[in-house]
Amino acid sequence: MAGFVLGDNQYGKAETRLVRVDRDTGVHRITDLNVSTTLAGDLAATHLTGDNSGVLPTDTQKNTVYAFARDGVGEIEDFALRLARHFVDSAPTITRARVRIEQYGWDRLADHSFRRGAGTRTATATYDGTGSWLVSGVQDLVVLNTTGSEFHGFHKDRYTTLAETTDRILATAVTARWRHAATTGVDWASSFDEATRHLLAAFADTHSLSLQQTLHAMGERVLANRPEVAEVQLALPNRHHFLVDLAPFGLDNPGEVFHAADRPYGLIEGTVLRADAPEPGLAWW
Amino acid sequence: MAGFVLGDNQYGKAETRLVRVDRDTGVHRITDLNVSTTLAGDLAATHLTGDNSGVLPTDTQKNTVYAFARDGVGEIEDFALRLARHFVDSAPTITRARVRIEQYGWDRLADHSFRRGAGTRTATATYDGTGSWLVSGVQDLVVLNTTGSEFHGFHKDRYTTLAETTDRILATAVTARWRHAATTGVDWASSFDEATRHLLAAFADTHSLSLQQTLHAMGERVLANRPEVAEVQLALPNRHHFLVDLAPFGLDNPGEVFHAADRPYGLIEGTVLRADAPEPGLAWW
Amino acid sequence: MAGFVLGDNQYGKAETRLVRVDRDTGVHRITDLNVSTTLAGDLAATHLTGDNSGVLPTDTQKNTVYAFARDGVGEIEDFALRLARHFVDSAPTITRARVRIEQYGWDRLADHSFRRGAGTRTATATYDGTGSWLVSGVQDLVVLNTTGSEFHGFHKDRYTTLAETTDRILATAVTARWRHAATTGVDWASSFDEATRHLLAAFADTHSLSLQQTLHAMGERVLANRPEVAEVQLALPNRHHFLVDLAPFGLDNPGEVFHAADRPYGLIEGTVLRADAPEPGLAWW
Amino acid sequence: MAGFVLGDNQYGKAETRLVRVDRDTGVHRITDLNVSTTLAGDLAATHLTGDNSGVLPTDTQKNTVYAFARDGVGEIEDFALRLARHFVDSAPTITRARVRIEQYGWDRLADHSFRRGAGTRTATATYDGTGSWLVSGVQDLVVLNTTGSEFHGFHKDRYTTLAETTDRILATAVTARWRHAATTGVDWASSFDEATRHLLAAFADTHSLSLQQTLHAMGERVLANRPEVAEVQLALPNRHHFLVDLAPFGLDNPGEVFHAADRPYGLIEGTVLRADAPEPGLAWW
Repeated sequence: MAGFVLGDNQYGKAETRLVRVDRDTGVHRITDLNVSTTLAGDLAATHLTGDNSGVLPTDTQKNTVYAFARDGVGEIEDFALRLARHFVDSAPTITRARVRIEQYGWDRLADHSFRRGAGTRTATATYDGTGSWLVSGVQDLVVLNTTGSEFHGFHKDRYTTLAETTDRILATAVTARWRHAATTGVDWASSFDEATRHLLAAFADTHSLSLQQTLHAMGERVLANRPEVAEVQLALPNRHHFLVDLAPFGLDNPGEVFHAADRPYGLIEGTVLRADAPEPGLAWW
Repeated sequence: MAGFVLGDNQYGKAETRLVRVDRDTGVHRITDLNVSTTLAGDLAATHLTGDNSGVLPTDTQKNTVYAFARDGVGEIEDFALRLARHFVDSAPTITRARVRIEQYGWDRLADHSFRRGAGTRTATATYDGTGSWLVSGVQDLVVLNTTGSEFHGFHKDRYTTLAETTDRILATAVTARWRHAATTGVDWASSFDEATRHLLAAFADTHSLSLQQTLHAMGERVLANRPEVAEVQLALPNRHHFLVDLAPFGLDNPGEVFHAADRPYGLIEGTVLRADAPEPGLAWW
Repeated sequence: MAGFVLGDNQYGKAETRLVRVDRDTGVHRITDLNVSTTLAGDLAATHLTGDNSGVLPTDTQKNTVYAFARDGVGEIEDFALRLARHFVDSAPTITRARVRIEQYGWDRLADHSFRRGAGTRTATATYDGTGSWLVSGVQDLVVLNTTGSEFHGFHKDRYTTLAETTDRILATAVTARWRHAATTGVDWASSFDEATRHLLAAFADTHSLSLQQTLHAMGERVLANRPEVAEVQLALPNRHHFLVDLAPFGLDNPGEVFHAADRPYGLIEGTVLRADAPEPGLAWW
Repeated sequence: MAGFVLGDNQYGKAETRLVRVDRDTGVHRITDLNVSTTLAGDLAATHLTGDNSGVLPTDTQKNTVYAFARDGVGEIEDFALRLARHFVDSAPTITRARVRIEQYGWDRLADHSFRRGAGTRTATATYDGTGSWLVSGVQDLVVLNTTGSEFHGFHKDRYTTLAETTDRILATAVTARWRHAATTGVDWASSFDEATRHLLAAFADTHSLSLQQTLHAMGERVLANRPEVAEVQLALPNRHHFLVDLAPFGLDNPGEVFHAADRPYGLIEGTVLRADAPEPGLAWW
């Protein structure tokens, strides 16, 4: 139809659930992943006429994830990049691949036994035939400070009723992503562990005047300690804990009894980066 | 700390649940919304030093949503834009506001009684002090064709095992967003109803050679019939229905018995726009 | 180990997702089910020694669901009972089978096209080798009255702060189950439609002094109109809608602006039955 | 209406989210609970006529949860029982109260900082004016064995296609509840820790011929080691991990690459109890 054009488009297989067991010693290791592949390129034909000659089926993408796991997964950054390169290098129409992986942590109970832990490690690799980009991250990391958090001096208008406070609970479910300056030469496992450790430490030891300040401190802490990281992006929902008014029952409440609310919630999002960080390229879309 | 800079950032109140009842006649009307406000501007101080003098609390944003509803909500496009303008025009540091609203549909049972229906209407308004943008949409719109869908002629590699088919079930949960060319002069309610009707009609009457082709047909159909729409963005998860192999039980299966799978799923995303569409501005981030 | 005994136990395959297409005419019909089978009987051996000779695998139960659908599903009450009888009658150790089915509704868009609707129909059949029982139901049926609901005159103690009200929003997500007096001789489709219609009508036209009163009226209405029903069991979460205090903003709020809360919520559960209802037998566990 | 009677009924406040901070020393402690209260008694009046004089509002129940927390929560078994007793002893019409609590675990990061852990502790107290019962439990405890699990020798019929195996992954999300023989004289915190430890140990070190056998071993292990426990009830969804067929790609798969499936799933439920266990009373409804 004249006058209409195909704009940005991509396709892929979302949430391929792969579990790999490494049995080379009597002490098994387990890698538990959720892999999503997204491809882009010269895909106009399938959109406009249903000519699929340039379409690598999403079912094939799933098969590829499983087949590549046969040789071992290793760190998810490497596995994601290996898959992204494969799709672009082997499928004629595909010019850009993004592979996003969630890794669920398991704690060891015994040589062959595991218990699921908290928090999810993530990695996203992008490849466009020439350049590659890696973003690591963590999500579902729920943290809480019982004190050391204030909020006052804010802008007030006719709709402001919030009381200022010098002592509140601060709680959030961290979603963090950090872009690496390079895609090689990094010990990804150690980098993840250390970045997460610094995020947690900054959350815990920052005396907070706002969740924004805590966010910035967390990003800065990672950058200050991890030279391989160029940029840190954080999304912090403010899980409000409201002090319950016990006065109607003849009771005081000196910061002890709280109602944990569901909705609405504040949502603070921000990025901290090196002044001399390399361009993000295709890393963030 | 030297060498680190604050990058993109924004904050707001997510998921304020507002229900408004219009009681001006004996036949009540109900408006059931989930409102998320997001503000950006000169917010460096709170990030860097915890100086909150430029921060309009997210609690105030919630209050504002409720207070503005006192005068009536009207169409969600107008309500979102009214809120976005208020935040930018009244808060000194705020230079950009985005308000996203989900509206849950209710079917009438009686003058004062309602039943929740299927599908969610959405609207997102953005305002930056000079320009404004509106995006309408629908989500959770689950549709299925029992025939009229083929998939063959695709690119094959060593990992391809998918059989070609000339008759399959095609099912998806539509998430569609369409950007309007202007923010005034449109009957938003009628525009939404008609855009949704065209999406459904195009899904139903397109003989599909790929979900990408169906996606493009859906976007094109809206553009061809709704001059107020500049661009249509669609995300279509492919809810795979696999024909069950009944041969081990001595039974054939002529396209009648299917397993509805959860994960993984294909995910097709694309945009269709007018060749002469105005620039999207801040509408899409 | 001496001194310990195996108590109640059962096993089965949960959530087999079955979609059947009836193509006998040009106007296709679709049946979209979630089937869970649960078997009990002489299963001590597998618990105590891992001797599985009496265990019909859950994988086989899943296969059976698909294979039986080849002949047509019909009404879910009949399909559930047919499956339950098969398991007890054919597996030597199985003395009791329960099959629970959820059916998702689809509205027709065209001869081969459908859109998912709201509300889920349910049926549970139980068979123990001699007797059979059927329970039909509906869930995810969300309803709201904007007026005609009061709550006052309640018991008060030192922890009571709730204000009495003569006009509030009453909203709930109905989960209803009704036990049939017999397992044959009923037009299940019509019975379901009518029972649901009566539930909705009673919710809408009962002037409510408590959600318990509404619950009772809903159960009674079904019993009064559907002689095939012996008993109605209802679970009604009270989806609280709180009037927002707009006074701090200089505004009144005459029953128009509400906050829809998530948690906590009241939960009202009750049963209404015929004075001469037959014994429930195994129907409810 | 003649001929219809009110059957079993109960009501309460579900999911009151309570967080208590103990600040008596510089090392804070946190108790994070989800409390649901359910009351039953002489409640016919509110059902039949809307006379609420016997109804203690669910809002009051919520207030009571918060007010009682002012004195400290302690172990959830004690807190649940204290609340249950209060409702029956103080509300004239209430003859039975059940209080169910979920406790979310937090790991310490620093004196005032915590990170949410995996697994949820539960307790349910029931009181009927004379007797009381306590059930403790754990849920969301996800565990996996990479080997040491077989499944063969099962009953086969014409719908059986499952291959027998002598080595499979066994994974489940444990929901366990154990009934205590008494409601006093037990160190609840230690009892919970030890019961959970024994569940995990039995899962890990039982060479499994069926998930039923593992279930029984887990229940028996708790009983053998915890004299305060009279009965253990377990629900174990079988989280199937299917070996991926890599042969089409020219690869073998010696137990290394698996697809983690969502639905359907096996569901194994069973109870292990002492031969001389006291009657469960009202503990399990």
